[in-house]
Amino acid sequence: MVKPIGVGLLGLGTVGAGVVRVLDLNRDRIEREVGAPVSIRRVLVRDLAKPRAADVPPDLLTDDYDLLLEDREIEVIVEAIGGVEPAATYLSRAIAAGKQIVTANKELLARQGRELIRAAEEKGVQFRFEAAVAGGIPIISALKESLAANRVSRVMGIVNGTTNYILTAMTEEGRDFTTALAEAQALGYAEADPAADVDGWDAAYKLAILASIAFGSRIAVEDVLVEGIRHLEPADITYAGELGFRIKLLAIGQDEGGRVAVRVHPTMIPARHPLAAVNGVYNAVFVRGNAVGDLMFYGRGAGDLPTASSILGDVVNVARHLASCGPHRICSCFYDYPVIPAGDLKTRYYLRMEVVDQPGVLAKIAGAFGAHGVSLASVIQKGHGSDPVTLVFVTHTVKEADLRAALREIEGFTVVHAVRNVIRVEEG
Amino acid sequence: MVKPIGVGLLGLGTVGAGVVRVLDLNRDRIEREVGAPVSIRRVLVRDLAKPRAADVPPDLLTDDYDLLLEDREIEVIVEAIGGVEPAATYLSRAIAAGKQIVTANKELLARQGRELIRAAEEKGVQFRFEAAVAGGIPIISALKESLAANRVSRVMGIVNGTTNYILTAMTEEGRDFTTALAEAQALGYAEADPAADVDGWDAAYKLAILASIAFGSRIAVEDVLVEGIRHLEPADITYAGELGFRIKLLAIGQDEGGRVAVRVHPTMIPARHPLAAVNGVYNAVFVRGNAVGDLMFYGRGAGDLPTASSILGDVVNVARHLASCGPHRICSCFYDYPVIPAGDLKTRYYLRMEVVDQPGVLAKIAGAFGAHGVSLASVIQKGHGSDPVTLVFVTHTVKEADLRAALREIEGFTVVHAVRNVIRVEEG
Repeated sequence: MVKPIGVGLLGLGTVGAGVVRVLDLNRDRIEREVGAPVSIRRVLVRDLAKPRAADVPPDLLTDDYDLLLEDREIEVIVEAIGGVEPAATYLSRAIAAGKQIVTANKELLARQGRELIRAAEEKGVQFRFEAAVAGGIPIISALKESLAANRVSRVMGIVNGTTNYILTAMTEEGRDFTTALAEAQALGYAEADPAADVDGWDAAYKLAILASIAFGSRIAVEDVLVEGIRHLEPADITYAGELGFRIKLLAIGQDEGGRVAVRVHPTMIPARHPLAAVNGVYNAVFVRGNAVGDLMFYGRGAGDLPTASSILGDVVNVARHLASCGPHRICSCFYDYPVIPAGDLKTRYYLRMEVVDQPGVLAKIAGAFGAHGVSLASVIQKGHGSDPVTLVFVTHTVKEADLRAALREIEGFTVVHAVRNVIRVEEG
Repeated sequence: MVKPIGVGLLGLGTVGAGVVRVLDLNRDRIEREVGAPVSIRRVLVRDLAKPRAADVPPDLLTDDYDLLLEDREIEVIVEAIGGVEPAATYLSRAIAAGKQIVTANKELLARQGRELIRAAEEKGVQFRFEAAVAGGIPIISALKESLAANRVSRVMGIVNGTTNYILTAMTEEGRDFTTALAEAQALGYAEADPAADVDGWDAAYKLAILASIAFGSRIAVEDVLVEGIRHLEPADITYAGELGFRIKLLAIGQDEGGRVAVRVHPTMIPARHPLAAVNGVYNAVFVRGNAVGDLMFYGRGAGDLPTASSILGDVVNVARHLASCGPHRICSCFYDYPVIPAGDLKTRYYLRMEVVDQPGVLAKIAGAFGAHGVSLASVIQKGHGSDPVTLVFVTHTVKEADLRAALREIEGFTVVHAVRNVIRVEEG
């Protein structure tokens, strides 16, 4: 029996509840990845009486932080409160108590990251914060680890989902700012007080963190030039389109040969740029390194489960390090799944065939598909009056073996010259 | 004086020479990331007499592998030979000798990964292979580390640049397969014998590796359904477009509830899917996790420097682990760069203003821009004959302070009603 990794969770709001839910959902996978179970031993909340959606045994809840600090089985503190205080005090005390730290708190890092990280390094505890920037997108570990052999000259991202939702609505639906904001608020994508998002501060916190790591030089949020999106008008969106651009709220950091430029502002980018296609609440971060060239990371920048994915990824990595100072875990093939045989694969198909131009051919072919359980989603007929006529079909999802059987029958029809091509279709 | 991390490099072809070049280029950054210098002590080559483009002191070259194995200062073996043999034998012997392993060899991993990884785990050495899939894109460490708390249900990628270049040329330039292949060969994007790429085998090796990690269950390359792109005709590309799709060679792995489907084939995906916009030699991998949702990683899938970025990222991480069993390195702010003041920032600008409809206004405004060193790239004039007339300008790159000075002057002109908006433009 391996000793579980004990976690103390601070906060049971959207993010904290997401951590509880994902840990529960993926308990088996996480245990196999760590080599030991991961178990939440205490959850610190402000108000014990408040009803909770999260499925947490009531006796785990406490409003007394000392209970977490004193519990020697709690090795990892996960901070999901947000804001500077009391989070800063809680984390300082946890570090002093020798706990490992995982936090999602962008504002705290952008304002007091230097002091907290110094304290953690002096104490010799781990301190990870993947969830603080761009939610579920693993950009922090990419910059710190995989890209460590690059000099990064530029990091440029859509790191605020609220403003990206508003700008997408202004671009695609022709909304003005006020209407798009109201819709975002109605959908829960913007808060009642939207200032931190629409005025660019949320993006500025994230840029301070991203740029510090990308360039290896500490950037404070006060260093960032910040401009929000309130002043954008439909006319600007229209002209941008005419000029071949899209308008996005970008967080941009550039290393200009030992001097750093850091800015958040509405930006026109070419419509062909990969960031131009990042719409709605999605985030993306574009990185330029002198070895790797251009990279982009795309995904959900907020939300309970994506944020919990990053937090628990950090917990897994902290726990692996605690569990073993041995070699890096190499093999993650814990399972032994059978591979589905080709004939049992299910997908949609596009089929192009050439047939004789005579009445009843389409019906005959469609009948053969139907007899083999192949259901059709679209049909295009081209070149009526010539011979051959081209028929194009797109099927609904079918089993490969059924499709092949139908095709064998159809290829035998004298009215069919040839099946020219069969291509699988994926909806994404 | 910290002891350097000694590396033995196998192979000095495109990839090996890239490793030498990036290590040289980013020596300072890499040393700071590791906490010790990283130094290539020996390079194994087949033919000592062959002229080399890479800047390697001739006395480092050897054709005797035993020299590398016997050198106790060589702690890390970087394998950049490719193919199954002699790479497999070299790596087995290196593991037995207790060396840490970094390899870029997709075919070896897809065919003999199980045995090599087992040997490395038994010996207690590290074994990393980020460069084996999708070149510079850090997809392996994302799946193994950041996404370790997810159950991944799908991994779907464009992981072969040669075929993506050909399909892009067929789609955008209307080429047929044979012409596009010949062009790719002329540009060095396809080999003289293109079979491994165009018949899908390169993608199948990468999918076997990706799917094994994504699902935690070993997939051999023999398990993968493989279909190449030779049979695609311009008519199929055209019909795909009419149906709202793009055709891509996708490597697709799906976990269907404890059974795994793995396949490489030309695939129609909706034109709005993020993978549909991945063109030319770029690669991208799309991942669906039950916590993180949809993620996409985009970048250069091949080439000497991007591949070296991944290899040296692995070397940095292997070396960090060797150098210290202490805490995870947290702070990477080694430098102390000044931040560029807002007025000194340089970028392009879009400006929209409303002016009086009379002759000479445009000349007057353009003159004011010129006097402040603001050079114009485009001008749009709308609403001639009405009042106000809208003028839209896009500038070349200018200093923010110069732009602001020009605008102050222009806003003072009586013929100018208002400057309605100023938006920065980034070329990407």
